[in-house]
Amino acid sequence: MSGSDASATTLGEASERETLKRIFPRLPESRSTIVGPGDDAAVLAAPDGRYVVTTDMMVHGPDFRWAWSAPYDLGWKAAATNLSDVAAMGAVPTALVVAIAAPASTPVSDLEELADGLRDGCAALAPGCGVVGGDLSVSDTFTIAVTAFGDLEGRAPVLRSGARVGDVVAVSGMLGAAATGLRLLFSEAVDAAGEPDRARFERVLAAHPETVTAQLRPRPPIADGPLAAQAGATAMLDLSDGLALDARRVAEASGVGIDLDPGLLGDDVEIALTGGEDHGLFAAFPAGAGLPGGFRAIGVVVPGAGVLVGGRPFDERGGWDPYIGWDGHGG
Amino acid sequence: MSGSDASATTLGEASERETLKRIFPRLPESRSTIVGPGDDAAVLAAPDGRYVVTTDMMVHGPDFRWAWSAPYDLGWKAAATNLSDVAAMGAVPTALVVAIAAPASTPVSDLEELADGLRDGCAALAPGCGVVGGDLSVSDTFTIAVTAFGDLEGRAPVLRSGARVGDVVAVSGMLGAAATGLRLLFSEAVDAAGEPDRARFERVLAAHPETVTAQLRPRPPIADGPLAAQAGATAMLDLSDGLALDARRVAEASGVGIDLDPGLLGDDVEIALTGGEDHGLFAAFPAGAGLPGGFRAIGVVVPGAGVLVGGRPFDERGGWDPYIGWDGHGG
Repeated sequence: MSGSDASATTLGEASERETLKRIFPRLPESRSTIVGPGDDAAVLAAPDGRYVVTTDMMVHGPDFRWAWSAPYDLGWKAAATNLSDVAAMGAVPTALVVAIAAPASTPVSDLEELADGLRDGCAALAPGCGVVGGDLSVSDTFTIAVTAFGDLEGRAPVLRSGARVGDVVAVSGMLGAAATGLRLLFSEAVDAAGEPDRARFERVLAAHPETVTAQLRPRPPIADGPLAAQAGATAMLDLSDGLALDARRVAEASGVGIDLDPGLLGDDVEIALTGGEDHGLFAAFPAGAGLPGGFRAIGVVVPGAGVLVGGRPFDERGGWDPYIGWDGHGG
Repeated sequence: MSGSDASATTLGEASERETLKRIFPRLPESRSTIVGPGDDAAVLAAPDGRYVVTTDMMVHGPDFRWAWSAPYDLGWKAAATNLSDVAAMGAVPTALVVAIAAPASTPVSDLEELADGLRDGCAALAPGCGVVGGDLSVSDTFTIAVTAFGDLEGRAPVLRSGARVGDVVAVSGMLGAAATGLRLLFSEAVDAAGEPDRARFERVLAAHPETVTAQLRPRPPIADGPLAAQAGATAMLDLSDGLALDARRVAEASGVGIDLDPGLLGDDVEIALTGGEDHGLFAAFPAGAGLPGGFRAIGVVVPGAGVLVGGRPFDERGGWDPYIGWDGHGG
């Protein structure tokens, strides 16, 4: 590549310093910054003397494929999924740190676009949240690890363990859409050998924009996390592994049963129950409390254990495990 | 592998839940924990209303080789290098979150040993600091990302930008030992094809235990970070890319020159100046202030710019850049 085309330079050609100089101006600023990027560490404000922390890593192959996700999409999704975990504690997301390992052949412009996705994801979902630090490494496997922080604003964190018999259980965000999108990608956006294919992807995206975008560029209802805490939610978690499995986690942690009403789970009850990566919020609220924001009732907390659907035990495992069903990388 | 030998189970055979159940009890607890692992996010205490944050990723190939680093060593080093960045702000390390991506063929026992290294590294270097959360993914390339947190205990953070003409510059920790160890590994612990070799490694380790251990299992002087802040350090940073390059960063950020005394840099001045991964602390102190802990004077802050050695400008670049000189993975 010619040095005159700055956007074509790869990580292997540019120094780490040059690369960071191109990326950092594109990143969103955090309202909580006391000391920002550029020193050994950042310093952030924790006005109520506490902070919320969560981390998540996405790996090319099992977690995303370049044939389906543009760098912008990856940046957006890496932000969104971590913001959702912060919101699920009832906290307002304040900041991210981002560590990336990328092949030396990666164009610096890919990282610029990834930074744009981080910026736009934060701006759309959690205004005021920004990137306060990071790390850049070389790897044969493109990997991004985001750690996200949040401010409880003086409230108690909303844990998985507080659901009480008689509570209403509710969700905010779409159920099953991201999983439907993923199924479409694996069935229709692959070539004859089953490998992700960009041309077929474009057709699938055009035909099913809502579900494919729910998978690749999710919009978790971040603001509903703090709203739920303010409304007295007794338990809450991020829906990442499928409603049935995640509801079971709340049931186990709280020592209760959760009975879901299949009539409130949409047209495709099976995928609403078992589809992963919804990144909506699942919460329990005291009976009679108004449901805030985008929350809608889908069931009740009952005596007993586990998850029921229409009063019958639901034992299908659902959800997904990153080590099961993974058979190599591609795309 | 037989299911009866729990230690032989790989990540691909065990579920994520089983794996985490085996790892978590081995991890160190944090004194700052308000809500620990197991929910969407952890909640940590920030008694003075601020917290320090840094992140660093290590990738198999460029950053470590299994032929040379046991999983225990990797856990230790991943903790140590991040703790050092926290200490370099003048903060006391409080907690870590750890994201790991590993091949499905990785024995779960490797992750148990890695957890032991994290635990022992924290216990030895920063007692009270513990792991409050994490993530586990599958990848063809073993990758670990650590994000570390610290408490400034009411003090101002010590930045790179505060060095003033007349200050004494000092270091705590060994200079050049880790780089000497790395040179030995690449020259003597490789086979005829230049690939890392375990048998040769054992001989190199036996012959040069101090430098090889400085490279693989560093012991940064973490407690000296807060001590330097208490003693009035005007600038400080973690020595990660070589003394000359890191001193230049302080000089640039502070708008001063830094004159190092070659008589105070040990027997091998060249490697003291240019060797990376020391993970000691470099700091400037007001003239006449006592140097705390393990700090020893190595030079002075002077008018002008850049780094001088014995009064002469030192222009050798030194240090290392992860994207330069990397030619694939192995070992």
